[in-house]
Order: sequence, then structure tokens, then C-alpha cells
Amino acid sequence: MAGKAVAAAVMVNGSVAEKEVLAEIGGATNPMVTPLLTDLYQFTMAYAYWKAGKHQDRAVFDLYFRKNPFGGEYAVFAGLEECIRFVANFKLEEEEISFLRSIMPMCEDGFFDYLREVDCSNVEVYAVPEGSVVFPKVPLMRVEGPVSIVQLLETPFVNLVNYASLVTTNAARHRLVAGKSKTLLEFGLRRAQGPDGGMSASKYCYIGGFDATSNVAAGKLFGIPLRGTHSHAFVSSFMSPDEILDRALLSHDGSSTCKDFVRLVQSWLSKLQRTGLLRGVFGETNQSELAAFTSYALAFPNDFLALVDTYDVMKSGIPNFCAVALALNDLGYKARGIRLDSGDLAYLSFEARNIFHAIEKEFNVAGFGKMTVTASNDLNEETLDALNKQGHEVDAFGIGTNLVTCYAQPALGCVFKLVEINNQPRIKLSEDVTKVSIPCKKRIFRLYGREGYALVDIMTGENEPPPTVGERILCRHPFSESKRAYVVPQHVEELLKCYWLGNSSKRREELPSLEKIRARCMQQLEQMRPDHMRRLNPTPYKVSVSGKLYDFIHFLWLSEAPVGELQ
Amino acid sequence: MAGKAVAAAVMVNGSVAEKEVLAEIGGATNPMVTPLLTDLYQFTMAYAYWKAGKHQDRAVFDLYFRKNPFGGEYAVFAGLEECIRFVANFKLEEEEISFLRSIMPMCEDGFFDYLREVDCSNVEVYAVPEGSVVFPKVPLMRVEGPVSIVQLLETPFVNLVNYASLVTTNAARHRLVAGKSKTLLEFGLRRAQGPDGGMSASKYCYIGGFDATSNVAAGKLFGIPLRGTHSHAFVSSFMSPDEILDRALLSHDGSSTCKDFVRLVQSWLSKLQRTGLLRGVFGETNQSELAAFTSYALAFPNDFLALVDTYDVMKSGIPNFCAVALALNDLGYKARGIRLDSGDLAYLSFEARNIFHAIEKEFNVAGFGKMTVTASNDLNEETLDALNKQGHEVDAFGIGTNLVTCYAQPALGCVFKLVEINNQPRIKLSEDVTKVSIPCKKRIFRLYGREGYALVDIMTGENEPPPTVGERILCRHPFSESKRAYVVPQHVEELLKCYWLGNSSKRREELPSLEKIRARCMQQLEQMRPDHMRRLNPTPYKVSVSGKLYDFIHFLWLSEAPVGELQ
Repeated sequence: MAGKAVAAAVMVNGSVAEKEVLAEIGGATNPMVTPLLTDLYQFTMAYAYWKAGKHQDRAVFDLYFRKNPFGGEYAVFAGLEECIRFVANFKLEEEEISFLRSIMPMCEDGFFDYLREVDCSNVEVYAVPEGSVVFPKVPLMRVEGPVSIVQLLETPFVNLVNYASLVTTNAARHRLVAGKSKTLLEFGLRRAQGPDGGMSASKYCYIGGFDATSNVAAGKLFGIPLRGTHSHAFVSSFMSPDEILDRALLSHDGSSTCKDFVRLVQSWLSKLQRTGLLRGVFGETNQSELAAFTSYALAFPNDFLALVDTYDVMKSGIPNFCAVALALNDLGYKARGIRLDSGDLAYLSFEARNIFHAIEKEFNVAGFGKMTVTASNDLNEETLDALNKQGHEVDAFGIGTNLVTCYAQPALGCVFKLVEINNQPRIKLSEDVTKVSIPCKKRIFRLYGREGYALVDIMTGENEPPPTVGERILCRHPFSESKRAYVVPQHVEELLKCYWLGNSSKRREELPSLEKIRARCMQQLEQMRPDHMRRLNPTPYKVSVSGKLYDFIHFLWLSEAPVGELQ
Repeated sequence: MAGKAVAAAVMVNGSVAEKEVLAEIGGATNPMVTPLLTDLYQFTMAYAYWKAGKHQDRAVFDLYFRKNPFGGEYAVFAGLEECIRFVANFKLEEEEISFLRSIMPMCEDGFFDYLREVDCSNVEVYAVPEGSVVFPKVPLMRVEGPVSIVQLLETPFVNLVNYASLVTTNAARHRLVAGKSKTLLEFGLRRAQGPDGGMSASKYCYIGGFDATSNVAAGKLFGIPLRGTHSHAFVSSFMSPDEILDRALLSHDGSSTCKDFVRLVQSWLSKLQRTGLLRGVFGETNQSELAAFTSYALAFPNDFLALVDTYDVMKSGIPNFCAVALALNDLGYKARGIRLDSGDLAYLSFEARNIFHAIEKEFNVAGFGKMTVTASNDLNEETLDALNKQGHEVDAFGIGTNLVTCYAQPALGCVFKLVEINNQPRIKLSEDVTKVSIPCKKRIFRLYGREGYALVDIMTGENEPPPTVGERILCRHPFSESKRAYVVPQHVEELLKCYWLGNSSKRREELPSLEKIRARCMQQLEQMRPDHMRRLNPTPYKVSVSGKLYDFIHFLWLSEAPVGELQ
């Protein structure tokens, strides 16, 4: 499908350079994302526009959200690349047109001829760079083009941006509370909304600051680092070390072979039990677990990381793990560490750390005390915060359900509103003032203060002079008359950039790599004043309009009010 | 990909009949769902099993959930068809193996040769029929096969079942509260977890009892009825009726043409304003809206349904709608009705209904009073319930965000636990008793009472005699000694049926059509005692084990407890 669409776009334009641009953008398109991935009413409206001869009317739509998610005062914008890919490949296949004809049999043939020609060569897409910190009411994207085509884009754009931005924001919030030094692993595939929900989750959690995913397909498609060791089932699938047949292990430097690694492990276990280092631990450790750990170490001597809570962390998991790790150490390998998937993670991480340190000292094993402790089990922003407050020895967190389902708030309400048609500004009124749209084709600027932090976002009419460094500008709340302030910016950043300019690739921003988007997100989070970003009682960031735009909004508002009615 | 996998499976088996079965199952596979759509640890474990020579060990895993979602006492099982398709197509492509080799460079070549041969010809999948009402702890699926292969299936199976079952359950709950007579429309595409989240939502909401979707791609792929009319943007894209150039409309019977439909509408509007039927409405209605409605009616004279809340429902939307509907009526067309997307839906629906009835009487327009009132705007189970209690005149509900994101509980915690390996039963213990797994390869029976309602589900060991109609059987709580009861079933249904039997298609259940799955779901909801299904304080349905299985669980439990420790 991508291939065909590229060819079609090239036919229109004909240049080789253009072909390359489109081919590049058209890269790894999700085959689910066809022009039919939209609400039926976008097609019924397209027909009504076409019947009325209005389908070529030039419309401007803003895509924005109304309220920050997760009780916070910011969000992170994501999903742009997929929107641009969608636009670049936008072309109805013949069989798709046949399907539309079958469900809209009342429509005239000419309409389907029109649909056959439809593409995005007259569409323009302006957007905030992907990975930016963004705020309510400020357009994340401005989409211009023939009204019928731009409306066909509404549902897929909102679909592609909504969850992407929500889960990126969720990931960023987890990163902020975990701190920079911790490793964050996304383990959510099994709890996501189906296969593609899992793929999107892995991609956008990475952008939001996670370090790796367990999702192999996402690792392959997006180049995200992969992580994973073994599960409880692996542990209970073993009965005892007697099952292990091939017991030989070559030493790390290749100089010698341990013929019976199982026996070496067992001798270390006895030694550990004799030392008294494992306070309170007596009796036997679980033999299934010992066999599973030994087996895993034989397979991955350089990557031995064990899940230690299948039976009892302190009485079985830790002693078994340490015995295997010490046996590996004899052969020159360094074990990675443990994963805890239940229980009191703060307490267990401290206990494990203490034992690791004691062993380092007792047996003079350099680095044993610093082994990685990974924690999983229904973690979320709140539990990370609680762990921090309590103190813990966890180095890495594996987070699944709460991260990818955005359990704390599973939807971001992005909307797509008409703000201008045929150069006429349009406003959508509502009895609920937070639902009133901000009319006009706008420019958006972020004004920075002396300390380098962002102070305010300001929306202006398209033809107003832009804010200037060092010059005072009036920033007004879009709807509340009393809220206004003068700001003297030290730096001005225009937020909306052109990512799609119909057939022309001139002046079009490049789509950055995943790594660059992630880097932008990390940098943006740092450029915000910390009080906007904190978990508890964050300060709202100010979003404003110019004085001129304010006056115009309120003029339009009055003119649209029903006659004879106080609105 | 599907094609290749079928060919590979056929090579193993060779029969033409088999090829057809596989080709059929392999039908519309989601291209996202490849064997790499799994957690990395499934591959690292596969390697460890392979290294230990354990990879062919015959394992039995149960897939089940632990707690009913949405504060209810039931769930609906869905996602089975996609699991079976996945199994039928399970084959690693050469480039996928190359990728695995690149991320697991420490693994021996022989392992990748092994992966190259891996398929599901030795796997068996038993499952509760899709669309069944199901309960915690009872296996929804039992998967048997070589341990390394069955573990590779864990993540995709849980991914495919978790959200599918959750959103089907959510849809079923909405259907139960809305009642049979209402039309339920799924409008969630823009708020779902990406494109495939939207596709899954449409499919499974239909199974759970919704009547139609707005998602065109889902309509095409699954044959689900489609619904949709127009948005607020359509209304505000018009300035005034002067814009409408082609004003002619052929009458419904084709006998005459109204040359200026716009004028006919306007004359009806004046007539309405003079009658006083529109109590309290004076002054002008909104001209953008009037133009949009007129235009939409010109495009869809047989399907005129208008969104009436862009400006003011009672002062503009309803009068404009009625004028257009009456003009259509003059030409022999019947308008469909209105959609309300804001405000007090109960009140507005009553007001609209009153006006429709008054117009039917005043102008003698048969059926005008019965026009459809559709409501949307952030609806959920709770608001439907509140509307019912308050009384309303809504015929159809359009539900999006809360439905598809499962806002009230966005995750179902399906797990996949080892219950037997090489004929040895395995149990997963936990300090939390709700997390203890029920060991052994089991059979599951649903016992029905005299009134036709299901009484209890009972799990038995594989080789126990099954429950018999009219014979008393002891049903025990799996973990609580004191909870037990004798039941005399009037009807016994074995729940787990074979859906995949390796290479053989013998004794394998057919995969039913979407319509049949939906019908099963609707029928199952009726077969449950209403007190299990009610919203408020539902009665828990009983899930039990046989006396023999109870004894065995507790024997195993004791034998796994750490030595010298009271667990």
C-alpha cells in the first residue's frame, strides 16, 4: 500500500527528489492505517460538501487538548511522525472506493470519481515538534486544506495523537519521579490494547524517557533496546538440578572448562549456608529454583539476572541466586543481579543489597555489592514516589499495566476544531467556557525568561507582528478579562513548524529519528520550571493570546450569540 | 506472511484438506501479530530450555484472570479467534531469526536452526467458546505443547485476550444497562490506543452487544454495520444558506422536483415560528446551522439526521431541524432524527420529543413524533443508568471514550500459568492467596439448575468422572476449607473445547463467525441469574473445584512450602 501511494504522489509531482522524500516518509507505515480508518461521518460530510460544491473550500483546523492529564500541569506531544506518514500515503485504493460505494449507495458516481483523485497534495500540516512539552488550548497541529479532505484526516490524526501523547506523558511522569539515574523498562505488551496498542506503547514510552522494552517486535521495528530474562513459569518448570544434563561451562576467558557447574553452585550454596551471612535462613532452598537459576546461568553466563520471588525471596531466591553468581564469579563471569516481582520492594531491596555487600566483603568479590536490583509488580508513578520517600536499593523498574493502559487516566481528549474557512474565522461556542474554541489561523510563540525557563505560550493572529526579544508584550487569558500580564521575553520560540506542504518539500521540517525525538523530550522536560512539573500541587503554566486576538475572539463570540439571549 | 506460514504447515502435514483449514483460519491476520510480538524473556527462556535439553518438555498452561472487572461479578471471554489465527500462522521468518540472532549474539547457532523449525504442530489449544460469560480463576484457555513454544505464545495470547475480553465485557455491561430496545453505537476510534486499538474496540464492542460502529475500516474488515452523519465542524463550515448553489431536490417517488429546496425550508421555518409550537423560541435561528442542515438533507434526503447542539438546541437546532424535516416530508422523505452531544440529555430529549409530537399533530405528519433521538457526549454505564432512572426519550446512544478505553478500569489482569510439566502438576504459591494458581491439567464444567440458570463452575482433574445430570456432586472453594456445597445439576456443559490440535483438524471446533460469537454472548448474558449481572451489589457467581482436586491442591501446597517455615 505504501508503495502504491508513493507512486501516485510521484505522478502528481514527477520529480525524483520528491519521490525520495515521500519514500522516506512512507517508510514503515502501519498497514492498519488506511484512509478508511476514520469515522463514517467524515465520508458522509465529504459527500455533502461535494454535493454543495463546497468540498474545495479552504479550511483551517486546530488539533489541541483541553485539560492536562494525570492531575498534572503539562503533557508531551507525540504521534506527529505517524500523522505525516499517513498524509504522505493518503490515497484511496480501488477496493476501498468499492466498499464506500456499497455502504453509501445513495451517493452519485461523480463523488466516487472525486474520491479516486483525492490525496494530500493541497494539504498543509503545521505542528509543534514531536516530543515537546505542551499545554491545553494551544494547537499541537494546524491542518489546512480542502475542507472535505482535512475532515477525512480528523479521526486518524486524533487517533494517532491521543494515545501517543497520553502514554508519552505518562512515561515522562514516571521518568521525572524515578530520577535520571534509574533504569526504566517498559513491560506492558500483554496489557496493552491489542497488538498495535503494545507497539505504540513501546515506541512512545521510549520517547517519554524509558530505557528499554520487553517487546521484541518493537525492538525490531523501532530499534528500541530490549530487555528480559525469565518468568516464574521458567522456575517452576524445573523439578531439581538432576534434570540438568549438560553441566559444563567454559570460563569467561576461554582458558578452562568447569565440568560440573551444577556441583560448583551446590558447593557455594553449602558454603553460604555455613557462613551465617544469610541471617535467619536455614534449611534447604527450593530445588526447582536452584535448577532454573543454574540452567539460566549455563545459557547466559554473561547475562545472569534471576527472578528471585517464585518461592521465598530471602529464604530461597537470594541464597540460590548468590550461589549461582559466586559460581559464575569463579569462572570469571559477573552476574547482573536480581528481579523482585512481589512483596515489600523497599525492604527486600535493602535486604538483598546488604547480603550482596556482605558477600563482597566475606569472599572478596569485587562489585558483588553493586549488582542490579530490578523491581516490577504493578508499579506506577505513585509507588515510585512512595519508594523514593521510604528509601530503597532498586536500580531498575519494570513497569507494565499502569504505564501502557494509562490506568490513572486512560484517555486524553484531543479535539480537532474548525478555526477558519475561506479566510473567515470560525468559533465553536459552548455553555462550558473551557469548550469554546479559539478562532483564526494562528501563530504560537513560547516566551522564555532570564533563567532559561519557559514563561508563557502566546497565540497571535497570523499577520500580527511576532513577539520580539527584549520587547514587552501583553499576554491575555483567552476568556477571562481580568487575567493579563506584560512579559518581556529573553528568547522567543515559534512553536508551529511546517511538516507537510502538499506536493512541495520546500521549507518542510525533517522528521527526526526516534532518538532525536526522545532527546527533545528529555531536554524539554528540563527547560520547564520545576514547579510546573512537580507531582504535588504543580503551578499551572500560562497560556495566553495577544491583545488583538483577545478582542477578536470576544467580538466573534458576541456576534454568534443567539439573538435576544444572554449567553 | 499468512501465505508462507500456511505453506510451512502444509509441508509438515501434506494433506490438501489440512491446507484448506489452515488457509481459512489464516484469513485476515493482523500483520502486526508476528511471533516477535512477545516479550524478550520468552526467547531467552526458550534458549535456556534448549540449552538444558528441556525445550520439548510437555507443558500445560492455563490462561485466566483473577478478578472481575468494573466492580461486577462477571466477564465475557473474547479474543480466541485471533489467538487461533496466530497459532495457525506461527512461523518465524528468516529476517526475524536474523534479528533475534543480532540481539542474542551469545546464543549457539543450533538454537536458531531450532527456531527455524518451530511451529504449532505439537500445540493444543482448548478454550471456552468466544463470547461466553466467564469468571475468575476458571481457565479461559488451556494450552499444551513443548514448553519453549507454549511460552512464546504467552505474551501474544494474553495481549489478544486481555483487551478483547475487557472491552467486550464493558460493551455487554453497557448493553445490559441500556436495555434491549435501545440502539448502541460505538464512536470510539479517535480515543482508542492507536489504530489497532480502534479496530479491536469496534470488533469486540459489536460482540458485546453494540449495534454499529463509526469506524469505516472496521466495517469493511469485520462487516459491522456503520453509522454516522455529521459533526459540529460541518455546521460551522457554512456561513448562510446563500452558499448553497444546487438547490433542486427530486421528490422521493421521483415524480417531481422541488427547484428551490432552500426556500421550502425557509418557508417552513417561518411557519413554525408563527405557530408558537416552539415555546420560548423567538428571533432568528442560526443561519450557518440552517445552511448545513439544508445541505446535508440535499445530499442525504433519505438519511437526514442532524446534530442540533452546535449553537443552542432549543432555540436554533430543533427549529432548524424541524424546518428541514418538514420540507423533506413535503417531498415524500422521512427524516431520521437528531443527535444531542451536550447539555442535559434527559431534559433535551423530552423537549425535542414534545415538539416532534406537537408538529405531528399540528401539521398531520405521520411518524414525526417517533423520530430518533440519538445522544452522545461522554456517556458511560453510569450515565446510562442515571438517564434510565430519571426518564428520557433517547433511542440511540453513541459511546466513545469511556467504552473503548475502558475508562472505569483500563486493564484486565489475565495471566498464563504453568499447571503441569511432563505430567507433573505444578503450583505457583504466593503470600497472597488470590494469586495461588490451581495446578493440574483440568476439565471445567458449568452446572445448571432447574430454572435454566448456571449455578456453579467446577474444575476437576482430567481423569475424574465428569459431573452427571441428576447426581449430587461436592463443589468446594479451591482455597477455603469451610466453603463447600453439594449441587445436583439439571444440565452439565463442558466449557473447554478443542480449537487447535496441532496438525490435525480432527475433533477441532470451528471458529464461528462474528455474528455467531455476538449471538452467543447475548444468549449467555440471558442465561445468567440476574442477580449476578446487576450493577449494584451483584451476587458473586461460585467457582469451585472437585473434592479430589481440592485435596490435591492442598497436598501440593504443603509440599512446596519452605522447610521449617509456617506459610
